[in-house]
Amino acid sequence: MNFTKKLKQAISLSRSTLCVGLDPVPERIPSVLKKKYPDEAEQVIEFCRGIIESTKDNTCAYKPNTAFFEALGREGWEILDEVSKLIPSDRIFIADAKRGDIGNTAERYKTAFFDRLNADAITLNALMGMDTLEPYLNDDRKAVFMLTMTSNIGAADFLQRRFEGRLSLGEYMAEELQKKQQRSKTHLGMVIGATQGEHVRPVLKANTAAHLLIPGIGKQGGSVEEVEKLLDKHTGIPLFNSSRSIIYAGEDRPDWLEKVSEKALEMKNLLQTITEQHV
Amino acid sequence: MNFTKKLKQAISLSRSTLCVGLDPVPERIPSVLKKKYPDEAEQVIEFCRGIIESTKDNTCAYKPNTAFFEALGREGWEILDEVSKLIPSDRIFIADAKRGDIGNTAERYKTAFFDRLNADAITLNALMGMDTLEPYLNDDRKAVFMLTMTSNIGAADFLQRRFEGRLSLGEYMAEELQKKQQRSKTHLGMVIGATQGEHVRPVLKANTAAHLLIPGIGKQGGSVEEVEKLLDKHTGIPLFNSSRSIIYAGEDRPDWLEKVSEKALEMKNLLQTITEQHV
Repeated sequence: MNFTKKLKQAISLSRSTLCVGLDPVPERIPSVLKKKYPDEAEQVIEFCRGIIESTKDNTCAYKPNTAFFEALGREGWEILDEVSKLIPSDRIFIADAKRGDIGNTAERYKTAFFDRLNADAITLNALMGMDTLEPYLNDDRKAVFMLTMTSNIGAADFLQRRFEGRLSLGEYMAEELQKKQQRSKTHLGMVIGATQGEHVRPVLKANTAAHLLIPGIGKQGGSVEEVEKLLDKHTGIPLFNSSRSIIYAGEDRPDWLEKVSEKALEMKNLLQTITEQHV
Repeated sequence: MNFTKKLKQAISLSRSTLCVGLDPVPERIPSVLKKKYPDEAEQVIEFCRGIIESTKDNTCAYKPNTAFFEALGREGWEILDEVSKLIPSDRIFIADAKRGDIGNTAERYKTAFFDRLNADAITLNALMGMDTLEPYLNDDRKAVFMLTMTSNIGAADFLQRRFEGRLSLGEYMAEELQKKQQRSKTHLGMVIGATQGEHVRPVLKANTAAHLLIPGIGKQGGSVEEVEKLLDKHTGIPLFNSSRSIIYAGEDRPDWLEKVSEKALEMKNLLQTITEQHV
């Protein structure tokens, strides 16, 4: 199925544009799970299983962040593989890998994420050049989300500075991405920080049809009303990611899953006005 | 041991500034190994073991590229872990990961590569901002190699374009890196494409003391004489990476390891004039 069709279906099924970020940290796994499963790998898998099951009615996408799995050591990639399989097939699986490489190395990353892990989408970093996207362009079932205006303070170092007559490097990258879309079967979306209002506007204007992965709605303090205004004329579909504020909502309580579920519903409701434009 | 001291020692022991890139592709593993080891994971490990053993006398560093291990599927990270352990402790282990993320995600990548895999150095991509380097700065036994002027054609898209009054974004990044070094215990080096002569000069001038990871000496057609001129006033130590032209030098021959060994010696000799300045 075409990526956009699958995305729209996932939004319709969940009536939500919420994406849950899977960033498991062993130290923060509830002790009820730690007691039940002696093995760290199992703890992480069961933690993610619980989150997916208790949020899926209110969530259209899941985004495991590779860093959190690689930090688990030699078993990390196997755990990532197991967790990936837990993502329902009618939801979107975004691999938050932020990879960026060229030629045969980029080809290998494509194999790892699209063919082996079977992700629907991957986040990419194109600093090395637009050729970093090349191996990913031939699959209309897949999407790429390219970093264009991130939500961290450091975005001011490079992405927010003037570049080639544009207001920012991010704006210029968004233009390049839009050109690339013309010869790509794969959907080319953008990662856009919700906390960067004034800088986001020109980026969105440069590429109005790209689907968006928007971090920073929960923990990082972005306001939904502001984003709603920014998205006014945007035709691409926005996905709002929340990681820590959902997955650790239950802290160490025995009924942690109820809190996780409530938090996802709360986030979904926050996004309701925006979501209704896409179901 | 301090990173620079370990690097100098590795260069003295091998009398070489050659770094061998470990980019294993299962299809290209010699059939003698495939017959002996039925399991793909074992084939990759034994392939890398053979390369390391037959090149170590002429090589100061090894650089496994994470893409090639991730593409092996769920066992990929375990194989990377095994291969990492085969790198002699008196040689430099550079994880070619090109990671770039922020906050607690960057912290997790630091854990994965510095603490778990025990790499001496990692390649990083700082598009998101200089805060991507933050968790890596507190360890004088380690080094970071930040992408500043890569060797691909696509470097013309962003890195080679004018930025903030500088000749290029790469030059600006090199300046920022040099400033960051002042409050970093970790050595902050640069990845510099050998094929980008005119663009490399200002980058090196902006950061004269950074150690350099220089790809593109073999396969990508960079000339050693040109690089020697470029490095004339540079005080940081250059490492010259070669991957495919060494590791696949033996093609499918039964005596493939001899060819690998010969090729490494040939590359070491090519670099001799430069190397002599650092032993």
